[in-house]
Amino acid sequence: MSFNTFGHVFRVTTWGESHGPALGCTVDGCPPNVSLDETAIQYWLDRRKPGQNKYTTQRREADQVRILSGVFEGRTTGTPIQLMIENTDQRSKDYGEIAETFRPGHADITYWQKYGIRDYRGGGRSSARETAARVAAGGVARAALAALAPGVTITGYMTRMGAHGIDGPRDMDEIGRNPFWVPSAAAAETWAAYLDELRKSGNSCGAEIEVSASGVPAGLGAPVYGKLDTDLAAACMSINAVKGVEIGEGMDAARLTGEDNADEIRLGNDGAPVYGSNHAGGILGGISTGQDVVVRFAVKPTSSILKPRASITKSGQPTEVVTKGRHDPCVGIRAVPVGEAMVACVILDHLLLDRAQTGGQRGTIG
Amino acid sequence: MSFNTFGHVFRVTTWGESHGPALGCTVDGCPPNVSLDETAIQYWLDRRKPGQNKYTTQRREADQVRILSGVFEGRTTGTPIQLMIENTDQRSKDYGEIAETFRPGHADITYWQKYGIRDYRGGGRSSARETAARVAAGGVARAALAALAPGVTITGYMTRMGAHGIDGPRDMDEIGRNPFWVPSAAAAETWAAYLDELRKSGNSCGAEIEVSASGVPAGLGAPVYGKLDTDLAAACMSINAVKGVEIGEGMDAARLTGEDNADEIRLGNDGAPVYGSNHAGGILGGISTGQDVVVRFAVKPTSSILKPRASITKSGQPTEVVTKGRHDPCVGIRAVPVGEAMVACVILDHLLLDRAQTGGQRGTIG
Amino acid sequence: MSFNTFGHVFRVTTWGESHGPALGCTVDGCPPNVSLDETAIQYWLDRRKPGQNKYTTQRREADQVRILSGVFEGRTTGTPIQLMIENTDQRSKDYGEIAETFRPGHADITYWQKYGIRDYRGGGRSSARETAARVAAGGVARAALAALAPGVTITGYMTRMGAHGIDGPRDMDEIGRNPFWVPSAAAAETWAAYLDELRKSGNSCGAEIEVSASGVPAGLGAPVYGKLDTDLAAACMSINAVKGVEIGEGMDAARLTGEDNADEIRLGNDGAPVYGSNHAGGILGGISTGQDVVVRFAVKPTSSILKPRASITKSGQPTEVVTKGRHDPCVGIRAVPVGEAMVACVILDHLLLDRAQTGGQRGTIG
Amino acid sequence: MSFNTFGHVFRVTTWGESHGPALGCTVDGCPPNVSLDETAIQYWLDRRKPGQNKYTTQRREADQVRILSGVFEGRTTGTPIQLMIENTDQRSKDYGEIAETFRPGHADITYWQKYGIRDYRGGGRSSARETAARVAAGGVARAALAALAPGVTITGYMTRMGAHGIDGPRDMDEIGRNPFWVPSAAAAETWAAYLDELRKSGNSCGAEIEVSASGVPAGLGAPVYGKLDTDLAAACMSINAVKGVEIGEGMDAARLTGEDNADEIRLGNDGAPVYGSNHAGGILGGISTGQDVVVRFAVKPTSSILKPRASITKSGQPTEVVTKGRHDPCVGIRAVPVGEAMVACVILDHLLLDRAQTGGQRGTIG
Repeated sequence: MSFNTFGHVFRVTTWGESHGPALGCTVDGCPPNVSLDETAIQYWLDRRKPGQNKYTTQRREADQVRILSGVFEGRTTGTPIQLMIENTDQRSKDYGEIAETFRPGHADITYWQKYGIRDYRGGGRSSARETAARVAAGGVARAALAALAPGVTITGYMTRMGAHGIDGPRDMDEIGRNPFWVPSAAAAETWAAYLDELRKSGNSCGAEIEVSASGVPAGLGAPVYGKLDTDLAAACMSINAVKGVEIGEGMDAARLTGEDNADEIRLGNDGAPVYGSNHAGGILGGISTGQDVVVRFAVKPTSSILKPRASITKSGQPTEVVTKGRHDPCVGIRAVPVGEAMVACVILDHLLLDRAQTGGQRGTIG
Repeated sequence: MSFNTFGHVFRVTTWGESHGPALGCTVDGCPPNVSLDETAIQYWLDRRKPGQNKYTTQRREADQVRILSGVFEGRTTGTPIQLMIENTDQRSKDYGEIAETFRPGHADITYWQKYGIRDYRGGGRSSARETAARVAAGGVARAALAALAPGVTITGYMTRMGAHGIDGPRDMDEIGRNPFWVPSAAAAETWAAYLDELRKSGNSCGAEIEVSASGVPAGLGAPVYGKLDTDLAAACMSINAVKGVEIGEGMDAARLTGEDNADEIRLGNDGAPVYGSNHAGGILGGISTGQDVVVRFAVKPTSSILKPRASITKSGQPTEVVTKGRHDPCVGIRAVPVGEAMVACVILDHLLLDRAQTGGQRGTIG
Repeated sequence: MSFNTFGHVFRVTTWGESHGPALGCTVDGCPPNVSLDETAIQYWLDRRKPGQNKYTTQRREADQVRILSGVFEGRTTGTPIQLMIENTDQRSKDYGEIAETFRPGHADITYWQKYGIRDYRGGGRSSARETAARVAAGGVARAALAALAPGVTITGYMTRMGAHGIDGPRDMDEIGRNPFWVPSAAAAETWAAYLDELRKSGNSCGAEIEVSASGVPAGLGAPVYGKLDTDLAAACMSINAVKGVEIGEGMDAARLTGEDNADEIRLGNDGAPVYGSNHAGGILGGISTGQDVVVRFAVKPTSSILKPRASITKSGQPTEVVTKGRHDPCVGIRAVPVGEAMVACVILDHLLLDRAQTGGQRGTIG
Repeated sequence: MSFNTFGHVFRVTTWGESHGPALGCTVDGCPPNVSLDETAIQYWLDRRKPGQNKYTTQRREADQVRILSGVFEGRTTGTPIQLMIENTDQRSKDYGEIAETFRPGHADITYWQKYGIRDYRGGGRSSARETAARVAAGGVARAALAALAPGVTITGYMTRMGAHGIDGPRDMDEIGRNPFWVPSAAAAETWAAYLDELRKSGNSCGAEIEVSASGVPAGLGAPVYGKLDTDLAAACMSINAVKGVEIGEGMDAARLTGEDNADEIRLGNDGAPVYGSNHAGGILGGISTGQDVVVRFAVKPTSSILKPRASITKSGQPTEVVTKGRHDPCVGIRAVPVGEAMVACVILDHLLLDRAQTGGQRGTIG
């Protein structure tokens, strides 16, 4: 049982609290001889970093990563890679009030009930800060994928922010041009106005994030409990505040008929199968088809809001909770790089698992 | 890495193909001294058994379970419990055609690509028959829960069949009175007509199943990767044909505001917390709250239909696939007892894990 | 936690009691396309089978293995392989007396204390019959090694039986020519006389078994807790009645100086390193060197003897235990094929793990 | 697969190289509410610290541990505990020569062959410095045992140094009074003279360490692969340079008869079983008996000696290796606290596992 580890061969163990001296992760099982340095990891961390615009928490963390082990002369050695990020902008006094009070929608009450002790400064392990360690690990996974499966590209983007989805066609080039990673200039504008209003009223909203991985070779995954989608579902559901995970058609698959849902197959010019559609999200029977792997997850609205909500204290007294502190009105925005990181880790892990069992050999068609 | 195992302390390893001599599972880590016999397990298997009405496959399997180890004089011994179900109604000749052809929407093509070999008789490991072993394991989990946490009740039911959801209020008493396990007499009638039509036209449809577990003690689960919902998501996504998993509000959480989503807390008369709503689905920060644990998943329509779909053969030739055989027009119906079984296994597993780490002690309120 | 599973990628889960209807194992993670049938596995089981001569228990078990899954048309499919052996010669009445009495040196008392229930017919899971499942799994591992690393040869033999070791040089050709698998005709003769005497006096003796694996490629294993020798030690110590495990020089390494212990290195004609000696037993820093991997373990004398030993009953009364039944005067004899099987499983598992992490690539010398 | 993790519920993942900026470990699964601070861990690290007398390496490391997470206001929170030790006295230039040369008896050659890259500064992960992280983890385990099973006492000591064992009776009070942790004043004197001579001649020697754990409750462990002794064997064999592991009678069990080896049982005045001897080393059928758990392991002599040994370079040239640097003439001395730490971790882990499966309930006698 690994409470704080995910992955089978490429294993990531995260550690650290929101308001402790540091947080980080140990990445075990990375292949040797992968080019890696702090700059490569920092690139991805900077995408997740808070305080970059008015839509995310104003806590200002440099999120500077240090590699403490496992890399020698710019390449991985095959030994565990320790990544450490120091916390520099804790303001624990912001949390004085919640030491005795359970914030509705937060893990305060369940942590207390389970452990009988809780680091009440900012949510401890259940803080979104834990996801910085995931993004750092994702940076290692991306470096290893670049070496082992150079065709793989992993892109995350938002497809819904509270009341608003995306109307009209998606333009993937827009993703990097707005603070919401949304593939639509029009949506970016609508969403900005919506979020401004929410923020001013002290409210928050949920989000839907999609991560698409192209270039994933056919044959990753395994039947039954070793399914690629099983691990993707677990990886995404393990992100703070996530309440739903979908592959391809997702929950809407329940509404379809077999005729509509079947992705027809023909043979492409290069001898590889070509599919007429991708309802399956790139995975059949738990194994990748070679199409884009498409994963979607929903992040609930942060419960840290200025609107008063009824709750109780540790001593059982009724109270009202109004969360001031520094919080994200839509924490889902910063979940985009986290989702990408999780998908990168899972795909690399299954690439390594597949090398173990099949040696990477493939049944041929034609 | 456990390709065919799930669970941490209560571990289930399933084995067996659709058309081999038998299938089954090894259940390891069950507490000792739990009352158990074949009748208790058979009860749950009979709920999943095909051929019981015109809405499920006409393959007639007795699905008779045998306990080969781990039970002595009517009680578990703490050693591995082997459960075996013999296949008795294979008609492998039904599958002669698919030996050389990849059925769209099935795992035929990905299994071939990955392994370079495939037991083409009825889908092998990716057949819904594998889920019989899960239901058997779920029977063991239920027996252990009855001994260790007698208040836990786990109920599965369908909430959508293709185009049709449930209109009007739910009546949980109806679940056992119709072939769809739907908590609504009116829906049962509508769905029956709809499914008749689909069946006659040789089509199929998807389904949405909800499993609700009441009486789950607060404190099960763990932060980060050991979340109760992480394991529930993995367990449900590992079921054949599942494409989405939701906890509580699920994907709709993306649409809510923080004000709407917060489950307010007060203290009940018995000194335990009482929640004003259950958007969280009974889980906060990965740990159970004591409310009902609510999980939902979507099953895609079976791809085995009479409608011709374009595909290719192993030698790369274009072809059209029409699946005759004996198939479920809505395979999601039989996924209800499977979902219940997976939820039972996960809850028991986390009950045991919690005993390991905390000894079952709890932080007190008041 | 896997109470009854060993291995990482090639995972074996055994199940079954000495006097239940059957026992067996699930082998998960075997590479696909390995030639395998029941005859190949039976070959190894027949070597372990009891009742073949007067030196082993007179219980007559056919130990006939059935493959229930995972093999299709003579080749493995990559899905779990279920191997079942039915028990046919139980004489449970032999065990009536021990239901209430704890046999000294047996697990009767600890099983009772731990579980509060125990299948008292012949030791249940702690019976040497459990090792039949290991030998069957070892047969699968050997078949996979034959396909993936054809140069590997694994040979087990006894190097001590109670008071007697091997005097004079070893002759490996003798191993198959005597009932003790001892590489010395002279020792075989001495040991036979010694064991006859022990058996007649109702006593038993311990044994030392060595397993040597040649042709193991350099580079298997990993530093720290993933060491090849760590897994070999665990695998051998998990065999019933084993009390010590050694690699290469073993416990005697404590007596040596650094000068004596260093295995000097030179370059062979084929460009591979050649070692002047093999104190290391083929493993340096947890990773195979390419030399023979040499493992040794000690099996304690069976405690089932005719000599009366003091003990207590479940109700706490003092008693004397004399074990009649059908037992091995030197149970270590049948541990030889078991040790071979465990070594085969561990080497295959590390071969697969190495493919995962390094893809089988190697640093070159010269 | 966890290359750098050991334990099932109480899981320790170590990281860091001998000459990197730091090393440490993540301890996951520790029960909450255990009193813990840096002083408590430092106590055990100071016992292992090098440079304390002329018999250990003159590298002077403060080995100062920092707790970076998982402890709040002096108590564990149930979340991962990160322990970091900075390296302060690296003299990597000592290792310039070995960048291109494989030292006989070291892992230089196998690391190179496996990974094609190697941190050649001081052995990287295979350096004895990695064991500092184990000792730190052991400090956490001891703190948890003090809270959960206060009767457990774990004591390590040397029983052999090269040519010399212990003559005469053991006096456990002497263990803390000499630099070798040997339970005999006379042996301490003999060994000191012997080691002086070895050190002057630039040679080294092996060692045998015994760890005895008293007060371990009956019932820890599990049959087959979850045996307490299986995990003890793996834990000890995973320590650098260990070549053999024994439980109780160990390898000598091969020499005994069943009559001699049986530990007779009677009922003590307090209603608990009392054993007439402890050949079993406190473990029967993989489960603790309540007697002292006795583990022994052999450490080979360090290969870093002034005596020239033949070897080859990376380019395949023959060479002679003379290791100057700062090394332990008997590295086994510092393995005593390491062995204690591993045993503490394993016993705690099995205590937690037993709570998971049985809830700590016991079958009663009498």
